[in-house]
Amino acid sequence: MFSSVLIANRGEIALRVARTCRELGIRVIMVYSTADRDSPALRLADERVHIGPPAAARSYRYAPAILEAARRTGAEAVHPGYGFLSEDPDFARACRAHGITFIGPPAEVIARLGDKAQAREAAVEAGLPVLPGSIRTLGDGADARRAADEIGYPVIIKAVAGGGGRGMTVVHDARDLARAYAQARADAVALFGDGRVYVEKYLETARHVEVQVLADGHGKVLDLGARDCSAQRRRQKLIEESPAPGLPDDLVGRMCEAAVRGARATGYVGAGTFEFLVGDEHEFYFMEVNSRIQVEHPVTEMVTGVDLVREQLAVAAGHRLGLGPDDVVPRGAAIECRINVEDPERGFLPTPGLVAEFVPPGGPFTRVDTHAVPGLRVPSDYDPLLAKVVVWDAHRDGAIARMDRALEELRVAGPGVRTTAGFLREVLGHPLFRAAKHTTGLVESMLTP
Amino acid sequence: MFSSVLIANRGEIALRVARTCRELGIRVIMVYSTADRDSPALRLADERVHIGPPAAARSYRYAPAILEAARRTGAEAVHPGYGFLSEDPDFARACRAHGITFIGPPAEVIARLGDKAQAREAAVEAGLPVLPGSIRTLGDGADARRAADEIGYPVIIKAVAGGGGRGMTVVHDARDLARAYAQARADAVALFGDGRVYVEKYLETARHVEVQVLADGHGKVLDLGARDCSAQRRRQKLIEESPAPGLPDDLVGRMCEAAVRGARATGYVGAGTFEFLVGDEHEFYFMEVNSRIQVEHPVTEMVTGVDLVREQLAVAAGHRLGLGPDDVVPRGAAIECRINVEDPERGFLPTPGLVAEFVPPGGPFTRVDTHAVPGLRVPSDYDPLLAKVVVWDAHRDGAIARMDRALEELRVAGPGVRTTAGFLREVLGHPLFRAAKHTTGLVESMLTP
Repeated sequence: MFSSVLIANRGEIALRVARTCRELGIRVIMVYSTADRDSPALRLADERVHIGPPAAARSYRYAPAILEAARRTGAEAVHPGYGFLSEDPDFARACRAHGITFIGPPAEVIARLGDKAQAREAAVEAGLPVLPGSIRTLGDGADARRAADEIGYPVIIKAVAGGGGRGMTVVHDARDLARAYAQARADAVALFGDGRVYVEKYLETARHVEVQVLADGHGKVLDLGARDCSAQRRRQKLIEESPAPGLPDDLVGRMCEAAVRGARATGYVGAGTFEFLVGDEHEFYFMEVNSRIQVEHPVTEMVTGVDLVREQLAVAAGHRLGLGPDDVVPRGAAIECRINVEDPERGFLPTPGLVAEFVPPGGPFTRVDTHAVPGLRVPSDYDPLLAKVVVWDAHRDGAIARMDRALEELRVAGPGVRTTAGFLREVLGHPLFRAAKHTTGLVESMLTP
Repeated sequence: MFSSVLIANRGEIALRVARTCRELGIRVIMVYSTADRDSPALRLADERVHIGPPAAARSYRYAPAILEAARRTGAEAVHPGYGFLSEDPDFARACRAHGITFIGPPAEVIARLGDKAQAREAAVEAGLPVLPGSIRTLGDGADARRAADEIGYPVIIKAVAGGGGRGMTVVHDARDLARAYAQARADAVALFGDGRVYVEKYLETARHVEVQVLADGHGKVLDLGARDCSAQRRRQKLIEESPAPGLPDDLVGRMCEAAVRGARATGYVGAGTFEFLVGDEHEFYFMEVNSRIQVEHPVTEMVTGVDLVREQLAVAAGHRLGLGPDDVVPRGAAIECRINVEDPERGFLPTPGLVAEFVPPGGPFTRVDTHAVPGLRVPSDYDPLLAKVVVWDAHRDGAIARMDRALEELRVAGPGVRTTAGFLREVLGHPLFRAAKHTTGLVESMLTP
């Protein structure tokens, strides 16, 4: 195992990774921007390195600063968490060039899966079902028009360099295509510095279901079951759960098999997620791969009893996966709520600032992942995720009731600070959610008067 | 299910019970003494009733005040937690007389098991192994001397009304017996208002292993596996775990069977614990029954996935146990540490007062049960338990490492406030504890220079 790991991230995920490192006796090196210099997450570090100003592009996303911190502290490996540099193949390559282990798949795999058109192609090669769409990226507007006409409306224009719900535009009518296409390309350039886009059939009502996989460098690939993340707002997940409820076992089984097949076909190594859409007729389609640990990984951990970060570390250190399918016996149901400092009453406007009071929920089958403590100042420079509340119960109904209790218990207060907790309780209480009949449209429908 | 439950307790266990009640949609009524008027546990109550001054004898232990609070609020049932009135048969009887359900076994069962001589007799009748000892309570010193000579030294003099590690005196030599016997009787009168004592063989080195049972009012009894609580100081448990490590499976199986047999034979209903001592040769002896939920119940919950308080409520409401042996499939290993506000450097002197800073640990497989929040004032009137930190892992080694990390993360600070956390980390790190070869003597041996 590594003797030291540098965590190239911040907030709750930095703390999450640090916890497992400490449990394994690994020296923890954390980096921080000026905005995070007082972050309580740093308490779990053996060594702390200041890497730059608040702007992520000049700190957490700035590879040279991270690499220099790793060199200076003698870090053997870098854990990128999620976001920031976690899916940047150039960073993975640079780590390798510097003799540092990047905890994630090989750079070439990240590159291929990060290019959404190539990932789609790889999925097709591996025999995974995909939505009707343009296999290759599109040229001019006429090209896009032809592709869309062939697919049939509505269609969704996706940035090749996008992912994680960003860089997508839905078009319902042929008349809107030309303008939407031009805008999508401009947005893709602005967001990702890469204007390439492609077009796919858009499913109006669908479930977002994803499969967690673990793969070692010796050819072993294992699935850890499915998660449902259909409770989304603007394609950002709000509530996630495992197992995916209300779906036939054999459907979920086929999705898990597809994910394992896809991981094998692409030479995947590490923890990864294959995302799918499930349509009304229970047909499923490959969407994308997230080649990193995900925000919602704790629900899988609670159901399977597997510490996913520990497995990431082991696999990155070259070990064989110690787990077999017999070690991954799912039990009960877990739900995660993302507690963001956002004001649902004002269009989910972020409300950074001083969290003067913070009391996490506790008790049976209740897990909290957070870097928050009373007195935390939430900077405005990063995402608004303050805490993840995760609960488990033998049955989904019990888990929903437990989450409602936990969110009622959670106390977050400070001047101007608002959270999504109350709104999430409304989602949990919605009849469609309770019946596990909700789709990715549920949250928007609740927000539309 | 009950529509309302009054919780006749305080601190972490009041909160624990309230959590499950809320999850079940039960109206929660909490009582509080003047010392607890600002307790954050009260936040989870729908209704709060002041029952008296700080002294437990005039509040939490004072049955008329509890009964009056139940009458006034229309509580259907009373959950006594542990300690206080939880094993008081007169209180259970009074509840029944007032038409309130006492959440626990019938008063007659409590009375029989609470009388340690009768409980011993019941165990013998049910075929459970007991230590050589006087079956009946002893008369004068000569009587005691004859019994002790017959048993062989060392012996332990136990108060009939004792239990939970209180009211016990070890005698190593016949010459000390007369004085110890007189003192033990005087102590028993002072502590329990009942001077009856009996004598048993004393095991110098033993493991404390106990079995959790659940029984409904329809004849179904189930065991939920064993816990080891050998890490004790002056017979007060410090660290508890499940399963009991380092013991042959068939031994644990026989102890579980014995507990179920004992529960059946005594007409037990509810959640209860059969406590045993395990000697060097892996022979085991019945010690006593705790006819209530125990402080250490969370380790069983984490391993089995069963919410024990939920089962207590269901059984008390007359339901049949919904669980069978197939629903109780133990997974992995759980450990609990009791975080007391005590100073290990000064003989574990309690250090009540202001807890200005309180940050619980969090993250994977980590549970915290506590009523503490920053700014809590710990009164000096009750036991010094501030928080229970409970962790789980697939393997015991991993659970120990996780607990060490969790205790490192825990932050408790305030003027004069000390906790047992650092000392418990030393116990966790002791080679005998790590090898699961420790006995009830481990902690004392660490404290003896």
